[in-house]
Amino acid sequence: MMYKHLAELVASHPLVLASGSPRRFDLLTEIGIPFQRIVPNIEEVPGKDEAPYDYAVRLAEEKALMVGKGLRPDTLALGCDTIVVLGEWLLEKPEDEQEAFETLRTLSGEQHVVCTALAFVKEERLVISGYETTKVFFNEVSDKQIWDYIKTGEPMDKAGAYGIQGMGSFLVDRIEGNLDTVIGLPRNLLDGLAREVPALLRER
Amino acid sequence: MMYKHLAELVASHPLVLASGSPRRFDLLTEIGIPFQRIVPNIEEVPGKDEAPYDYAVRLAEEKALMVGKGLRPDTLALGCDTIVVLGEWLLEKPEDEQEAFETLRTLSGEQHVVCTALAFVKEERLVISGYETTKVFFNEVSDKQIWDYIKTGEPMDKAGAYGIQGMGSFLVDRIEGNLDTVIGLPRNLLDGLAREVPALLRER
Repeated sequence: MMYKHLAELVASHPLVLASGSPRRFDLLTEIGIPFQRIVPNIEEVPGKDEAPYDYAVRLAEEKALMVGKGLRPDTLALGCDTIVVLGEWLLEKPEDEQEAFETLRTLSGEQHVVCTALAFVKEERLVISGYETTKVFFNEVSDKQIWDYIKTGEPMDKAGAYGIQGMGSFLVDRIEGNLDTVIGLPRNLLDGLAREVPALLRER
Repeated sequence: MMYKHLAELVASHPLVLASGSPRRFDLLTEIGIPFQRIVPNIEEVPGKDEAPYDYAVRLAEEKALMVGKGLRPDTLALGCDTIVVLGEWLLEKPEDEQEAFETLRTLSGEQHVVCTALAFVKEERLVISGYETTKVFFNEVSDKQIWDYIKTGEPMDKAGAYGIQGMGSFLVDRIEGNLDTVIGLPRNLLDGLAREVPALLRER
């Protein structure tokens, strides 16, 4: 087994992915982990003085808690949240095409950080959470290129208004870190958290 | 147009991808570039004192030249080659499962470089070539994990005996550089080379 701890965990505890992201679905499916999916609906508003990574962890936890409370007691909910941070700025999913344009224009020629947080919940109990970050360096791109990209529809459901695979690849010069983190589900972190879950569950 | 120079080039010069790699096929298809594919068959043997990146460039050129000579005069052949370099060692596609095991065991816990070279050929003329490199940092993995991975069949057609997407993702801690280079077709480099082609073609 390649993602050994995760595979062992889901053998005894069915897994529910608390996310509607097709990219997360694919990342988990690719590695042969059986799971179901329930899409949570939470409000995503950063707290006044909340640090960006804390915000991502809180959202991952809230998503897992929302989905987890409706599940059978042996089942684990996995919440995920991905944010894009440029300096002090938190760049979220764009509300409309104009906002996508402004986000991409801001990212052009700059480096930013993508942070993905994960959280395991069992019933109403938060079991463990964590996050991972990857630096992304954007090419300088023209306004015309940005609008052409927006017209593909790809930016609209994504933090930072881009996807690193597919058409969005033209934006990215290079990354430093884990690719999965940028796509939205760091599988090595997930396996690392899964390793801790059995002992944590035994604690009560 | 996002890959602007490439899109403009193929509008006047049909493109033939000289590669059998399904991953390269996907990378080019994803960005909406029309192309055909012809799989070259060349011998892949490094020269005695040939530097690894020179070797990758030579193979990309030879593949493009082999395919290019059979094409119509307006058509461009694109050759590609990807190699994995650990220190001074060149790690090629594994010949069998045992070699895949030894390669992956050597890469475990270490960093290596993936180099992908590209070459444009028109008829029998080499127009331009270039390469790009990305650093890849592997996790420490157990012999058991390596054998489980080999049993998936994924390593056998790949330089360095792994793919960074899919199951092979468990091997990779992080990368520094362009993801496409690791997959086997750096599209930003391709677009940069495509930008130079028209002027080079006019030179004779």
